[in-house]
Amino acid sequence: MTDKVLDDISHRRYNPLNGSWLLVSPHRTKRPWQGQQEAPALNKLPEYDPQCYLCPGNKRAQGDSNPQYKNTFAFVNDYSAVKEEQQEYHPEKNSNGEDDIASLLLQAQPAIGRCYVLTFSAKHDTTLADMSASEIVPVIETWTRIYASHLSSSHPLQAAAQRALSEIPPNPDGEVEPPKKELQLRYMQIFENKGAAMGCSNPHPHCQIWTTSTLPEEPGKELVQMTKYHREHKGRHLLEDYVKVEMAKNERVVWQNDAFLVVCPWWAVWPFEVLVIAKRHVRALVELTPEERLQFAEAVQEVTRRYDNLFETNFPYSSGIHQAPLDCTEEEAEMSWFHMHFYPPLLRSATVRKFLVGYELMAEPQRDITPEQAAARLRDCGGKLYRKSLQ
Amino acid sequence: MTDKVLDDISHRRYNPLNGSWLLVSPHRTKRPWQGQQEAPALNKLPEYDPQCYLCPGNKRAQGDSNPQYKNTFAFVNDYSAVKEEQQEYHPEKNSNGEDDIASLLLQAQPAIGRCYVLTFSAKHDTTLADMSASEIVPVIETWTRIYASHLSSSHPLQAAAQRALSEIPPNPDGEVEPPKKELQLRYMQIFENKGAAMGCSNPHPHCQIWTTSTLPEEPGKELVQMTKYHREHKGRHLLEDYVKVEMAKNERVVWQNDAFLVVCPWWAVWPFEVLVIAKRHVRALVELTPEERLQFAEAVQEVTRRYDNLFETNFPYSSGIHQAPLDCTEEEAEMSWFHMHFYPPLLRSATVRKFLVGYELMAEPQRDITPEQAAARLRDCGGKLYRKSLQ
Ligand SMILES: [Zn+2]
Ligand SMILES: [Zn+2]
Repeated sequence: MTDKVLDDISHRRYNPLNGSWLLVSPHRTKRPWQGQQEAPALNKLPEYDPQCYLCPGNKRAQGDSNPQYKNTFAFVNDYSAVKEEQQEYHPEKNSNGEDDIASLLLQAQPAIGRCYVLTFSAKHDTTLADMSASEIVPVIETWTRIYASHLSSSHPLQAAAQRALSEIPPNPDGEVEPPKKELQLRYMQIFENKGAAMGCSNPHPHCQIWTTSTLPEEPGKELVQMTKYHREHKGRHLLEDYVKVEMAKNERVVWQNDAFLVVCPWWAVWPFEVLVIAKRHVRALVELTPEERLQFAEAVQEVTRRYDNLFETNFPYSSGIHQAPLDCTEEEAEMSWFHMHFYPPLLRSATVRKFLVGYELMAEPQRDITPEQAAARLRDCGGKLYRKSLQ
Repeated sequence: MTDKVLDDISHRRYNPLNGSWLLVSPHRTKRPWQGQQEAPALNKLPEYDPQCYLCPGNKRAQGDSNPQYKNTFAFVNDYSAVKEEQQEYHPEKNSNGEDDIASLLLQAQPAIGRCYVLTFSAKHDTTLADMSASEIVPVIETWTRIYASHLSSSHPLQAAAQRALSEIPPNPDGEVEPPKKELQLRYMQIFENKGAAMGCSNPHPHCQIWTTSTLPEEPGKELVQMTKYHREHKGRHLLEDYVKVEMAKNERVVWQNDAFLVVCPWWAVWPFEVLVIAKRHVRALVELTPEERLQFAEAVQEVTRRYDNLFETNFPYSSGIHQAPLDCTEEEAEMSWFHMHFYPPLLRSATVRKFLVGYELMAEPQRDITPEQAAARLRDCGGKLYRKSLQ
């Protein structure tokens, strides 16, 4: 059992995945709130919205028309944060070497890539929480095919990718042509922003997929930490050990099946942060078996449905998948361990949110309720999606 | 001059202060926005609000009454994130050493400390932007006295602290008794959350001061980076060189006086992020001369007034001061360089904000407009506070 005293005292917890600490203040949970209240999210959306740029058949900003797709539909983001083609950049270097303080302190590097948008459903008014696991499977299959098609030709997971591509039937609307071979990209970040509270302007269920020529900070830090752990601890994997310890303690576990563990991690920053971890050493989407894809869909369904049930609202969050880079060494692939983060901002109700500001920006992340309390709440709100009983 | 091409292409920039990269996508600035719009902040507040727990003479949640203070008033936060006294915590260790994966992966440490609230003015309806530099000086003097009174007795800056305490007249309402000697704390984080967009529930101008027994992540990372730079670059300081290179380039400078440089840093994450840096090697508040305290007040006034002028609104932000720890080695004090960060969330108007979500949480920070563009906008909106002309 966790030392009981941590339920009452201020303490810091260590996040071994990214190597940083956060402050936990469980005694503050009775603090009154006078701040901004958000209106509960409306759930009365139409199944088809003629104004939505993601609904089947509609026109997008740049004039392209969406096909009459069935579930997933992928296209290149009209306002991508990175592009495939741009002018080259070669930083100027002064010749005075070490004393060239501009080169030292004003460092930049070019970043190229491609950003996709991917719908989860043709229905404007649905969410992952409303979908069944078997309806979520096509989303995971599309993620898998897109990831597989972007892998470098010499990638250590290339055989698994070929197996996955042959197993999963192609979906013409969910296909994307990878960039040309000379533009092999380094990382693919799949992420979803859900809800106005997360700055998401369109309720049509969708995610984004940003591929870049560089390894981003967060998965990069995790890879360094996981590699270090592996070296220092007799070849055991960090998340392999973490799954073991969480299953043994059974204090932060929200839900599990044979293939996936769902926990509020020991180091959670967001009040109801959740980590979905593969129980066996899966390095990337392409290594999931058909049965594991279904089990992953179940895990995603359980998390999102419990989130909505928690405050009987359309629960906002950002989620994202971390896995092996698209282009990587044998060791980097081996050190990767498939997992998915969910970072939701709500704290005590549909209208009370947590802000990452002030101390959190200037000093370090801070939370009030403990991850053990959050996990207990999420365990208790399983069952049918609350909206289904209201209909 | 910055390579012109960086105005057009996606690239990453390096933040040498915290050792991480961010993604810059300047080509995206023409992106349309369909998301949440916030109501412009009201400026029609009363000078005194009987419901405000910060106004002079009012009662606070725990029943204490505020004195009839003149400008600054400091008190211990009724809902502190850390407390001075709490049960002790000694993590359990199993005896199986390296194989005790619970001790490895569920690490915690106790955190004690004390949190203060400090008002900037007796007037409920003012802000730093409304105050003159000479009205801001008492705020800086109070910060200085509070910092000085919390320094460890053997601190390398103890002589400077004594000088500052003798120079600055005591302000009984702004005094706080430091914790008892046995509870010497490690760090003092002074920060302001301004505006409902930053989760701040009370418009009465105030900041928070959190003192902790541990060195928080952000100033800790900066201290490591500044120390490394000093060792690797012939004993030069990172921010000393950075001031030099920004003054020479003159592309990101917003404003300056003899003692302080105000820039949109090369590595800014927030659209109009600003860094105020001491030009000479000031390690902490206590080393500022009376003239430098006035010049720091001018810098804070220039930043906050320009922020309000930018979109003619009461501009929200989180700001914070980084300086030498309260308890530190000779080297840690020497490596510290006094500076203040401003992180404002607004992007294109009083109602369009930036969200740090999705890719930023899962992968790495990303911005659209360049720091050079932001600095140009902030340079151009000096002059009188826009509200003064409306009255
Ligand atoms: Zn991760
Ligand atoms: Zn700093």
